[in-house]
Amino acid sequence: MTTMFFQPSAHIVKPYALMDLDDTLFQTQRKIDAWHLPTAAPEDLICASVNKQGEPLSFMSQRQASFVNWLLASTELIVVTARDRKEIKRVRLPFDSWQVLTHGAIVLTQDGKLETQWQQRMYSKLAPLQEKLGQLSQLFTQHSSSDNSHLKFTTHKDHFNNGTENKELTIYLAIKHAQKNHQALIQLAEQLPKLIRHFDQDFYVHVNANNLAILPHAVHKRHAVQFLLAQHLDAQRPSFGFGDSLADLPFLQLLDWYGMPNHGQMHDNISR
Amino acid sequence: MTTMFFQPSAHIVKPYALMDLDDTLFQTQRKIDAWHLPTAAPEDLICASVNKQGEPLSFMSQRQASFVNWLLASTELIVVTARDRKEIKRVRLPFDSWQVLTHGAIVLTQDGKLETQWQQRMYSKLAPLQEKLGQLSQLFTQHSSSDNSHLKFTTHKDHFNNGTENKELTIYLAIKHAQKNHQALIQLAEQLPKLIRHFDQDFYVHVNANNLAILPHAVHKRHAVQFLLAQHLDAQRPSFGFGDSLADLPFLQLLDWYGMPNHGQMHDNISR
Repeated sequence: MTTMFFQPSAHIVKPYALMDLDDTLFQTQRKIDAWHLPTAAPEDLICASVNKQGEPLSFMSQRQASFVNWLLASTELIVVTARDRKEIKRVRLPFDSWQVLTHGAIVLTQDGKLETQWQQRMYSKLAPLQEKLGQLSQLFTQHSSSDNSHLKFTTHKDHFNNGTENKELTIYLAIKHAQKNHQALIQLAEQLPKLIRHFDQDFYVHVNANNLAILPHAVHKRHAVQFLLAQHLDAQRPSFGFGDSLADLPFLQLLDWYGMPNHGQMHDNISR
Repeated sequence: MTTMFFQPSAHIVKPYALMDLDDTLFQTQRKIDAWHLPTAAPEDLICASVNKQGEPLSFMSQRQASFVNWLLASTELIVVTARDRKEIKRVRLPFDSWQVLTHGAIVLTQDGKLETQWQQRMYSKLAPLQEKLGQLSQLFTQHSSSDNSHLKFTTHKDHFNNGTENKELTIYLAIKHAQKNHQALIQLAEQLPKLIRHFDQDFYVHVNANNLAILPHAVHKRHAVQFLLAQHLDAQRPSFGFGDSLADLPFLQLLDWYGMPNHGQMHDNISR
């Protein structure tokens, strides 16, 4: 057999870039300060997301904005985020490919439609857990309404169609600490499996910065990315991706090359 | 102040892509098999490097070749490698930007010339160590010529100019095991500081797969990349990079985003 050597080709195959968003491509002013991000003087900042009131919330440094502009032009940029369908609308970046949302419970096609097969699979996994998720919600609603609680509790829901029925299902529960007390969330995460019977059987917990998420095992960025790679993406095309959180690692390791920003949870973990 | 929101721009700023080569962008057939690389059927392989006899030695899978073609077209690709100036010539890829070679001892400009300032700095660091490096070389030459030794020993040298004198200086020492016994190299690495007086004062050791390198502290990819970033690269442009080895981590962490292929030493380390 004759050996083929590399020849530069004008036929550029764009790689898939599977990217986490918050704290990977942009972040709040508080974190810009904490991480001493370069090219992030107030006049250089580009707003990347807004809060519920439509006010600027997260920003890109000049380098980050430049990188995102390049990603959008030079790769097939696939969003892989914990944000749900409402929350992703607050990101003011023009995504135009597949989107993995709500920790992997939602897969949107290039047209922004729910991927049918994934929707049905999630329906079948989430429907049996609704009662348990309801009980957990009640527990946290009670607790977080008590005067001395610092926990802010949110339920993340969406509509799922299993082919015959369309139902609003709870996907996961999120807890933040009013004073951004990371250690308090870590402690809560450790207690949950002890406080709630058979917790580990159905759920897992992830904590990063001021976010604690209680997720059904079926809901994971990795599962959704595995599905996308197997069902919809071209196996000839290379892939790479970045994420900041240890919870991103399982999905990132499905890609040919993977990494992280030079700050954040995964970076801190690898640097120790 | 008015908030700026992101607007896609046709003015694409190419990021700097600082890339390790061997085992990050291409590898030998033995490793292709060991890592079960996808799109690496014999007819899909593209030769990336040759051995001293000019015969094919390392290959890219279809995805890797596609990724390299894209990197060359879409980024400013800066090579960061342990290969010296002879060894880099055996890589058959058309690099056209800065090159960091010989573990960081050599910095080549876009024209392929030695960067003057870095050359002088290395001269001043390496010249005082030549006697010690000579003694170490003798030790290993004797040992590796004995009948029952499985160690293959190489000295890596290059010419350095300090402004007035041009000298050939030893940069670092490399040892391989004839039977690719990684554990034997690990043991040797542990013994060296105990066997040789004041070893730690001047040198450090790095082991990855079947390569053991004994390097002066001044010789490190990180030092050269730090110099490049500070002296020659545009601080407004984003940077990212990939490497496979734990020894790559210090230089990678100077970049805005960094990562690794989904196999190899760093991946194994992060996955544990």
